[in-house]
Amino acid sequence: MKNKLSVVKIGGNVIEDENALDVFLTAFSKLEGLKILVHGGGKLATQLATKLGIESKMIDGRRITDGETVDIITMVYGGLANKKIVAQLQAKNTNAIGLSGADGDSIQAHKRPVKEIDYGFVGDIDGVNAALLSKLLAADLTPIFCALSHDGAGQLLNTNADTIASEIAIGMAPTFETTLYYCFEKKGVLMDIADENSVVKDINTNTYKSLLSDGIIADGMLPKLHNCFHALNHNVAKVCLGDVTMLDKNTELFTTIKL
Amino acid sequence: MKNKLSVVKIGGNVIEDENALDVFLTAFSKLEGLKILVHGGGKLATQLATKLGIESKMIDGRRITDGETVDIITMVYGGLANKKIVAQLQAKNTNAIGLSGADGDSIQAHKRPVKEIDYGFVGDIDGVNAALLSKLLAADLTPIFCALSHDGAGQLLNTNADTIASEIAIGMAPTFETTLYYCFEKKGVLMDIADENSVVKDINTNTYKSLLSDGIIADGMLPKLHNCFHALNHNVAKVCLGDVTMLDKNTELFTTIKL
Repeated sequence: MKNKLSVVKIGGNVIEDENALDVFLTAFSKLEGLKILVHGGGKLATQLATKLGIESKMIDGRRITDGETVDIITMVYGGLANKKIVAQLQAKNTNAIGLSGADGDSIQAHKRPVKEIDYGFVGDIDGVNAALLSKLLAADLTPIFCALSHDGAGQLLNTNADTIASEIAIGMAPTFETTLYYCFEKKGVLMDIADENSVVKDINTNTYKSLLSDGIIADGMLPKLHNCFHALNHNVAKVCLGDVTMLDKNTELFTTIKL
Repeated sequence: MKNKLSVVKIGGNVIEDENALDVFLTAFSKLEGLKILVHGGGKLATQLATKLGIESKMIDGRRITDGETVDIITMVYGGLANKKIVAQLQAKNTNAIGLSGADGDSIQAHKRPVKEIDYGFVGDIDGVNAALLSKLLAADLTPIFCALSHDGAGQLLNTNADTIASEIAIGMAPTFETTLYYCFEKKGVLMDIADENSVVKDINTNTYKSLLSDGIIADGMLPKLHNCFHALNHNVAKVCLGDVTMLDKNTELFTTIKL
């Protein structure tokens, strides 16, 4: 029997709302068993860039990350957001330890090759240091990842937080029975985008194909669901999509995805 | 026989100079045995504050840290400076892991009580989590501390990096034969401030008293030397003061302090 591990990803929207963040961190701190958190922080970075007179360039929701921008992201993701979350979790009796992918060489990546678009200092993940994470978990620490990886040659790389979460879950799957939670503003995959309670409770490979061909899964949900099935196809036990109440177990209104 | 441990503190001046930082990190990466780095980052924080239109208030070289300022310090110390150092050390084959005092509850502190001056969110250290640091060192990790502690109730606290270094050295002294290195822009304690090579090579309790009464140790060196003797009086084996060449062992021109 493998030990259970929860990998939870929380979006940037929650981080910039103090009350919502507190509610989330309380729920996360109460989640039983071994756990890892991955957080974004996108809008905070845009706000700081604006204050500093630096234009934020986005293509398809991905940030073009030049040298100035990677510094801002390092400040906001690795500094402000990560350390605040860690300090607040310590106050909730969770022994959190904040990490970028450079810390302990925990997430190895390479700079995305330039094709049609030059994304700049954006990382595509090569591997996760599962041995390190296992040691930290064994020491009763809860790793808190910001959305930064590194290239091993001294460069930090802006990296999609959804992808970091799925790659960590995949990296840990050989050792732990791993559940990946994508926690966001919706209650799950919705049959009707106008009805927030029209949650599709269970998705598997077959129903996924139907939801795709019916156009139920579209737009921003496409890459998220792609990450979910990528994780499931690499031995992650299940993926859950929902809002913070999913972690409380106070609701059955969230989406569970299995192969 | 205890294992040897080096605790190295590097000042903010080195961090903002890319070449000097690279020279320092190369020397630090080559330092043999177990080691911990503590860094400042003061001027970078002042630069960011200025860009954001926030006034930096200093009294006797100590920063008055209001809510906005502690956010800036968290971004600059915990984010930009700390993660850049970690990424660059990874490129030099040192398995660095960046920490604030909140991470793993590594440095417990309380907000400095208001007396004549309200320093704001400034921490006075209560304790260092030596058990955690021993576990990280045993896992072949090199902890890299920024100058932030926490109060255990969710608040990060701006904390003097010299003091963090001495308190870490003191906390580790029961377990390790600990040497504390203060690495700064001078070659050590100077007999003649105008002659950079007039280094006092050895100081002990008696010669310290003479240097004090002769006014050789004055101004900014007073709190530094106070930290040194505080550490020595709490079982730290020795303290060395000098510039980066002290770490290379390419010079004998630095100050060694023992009781």
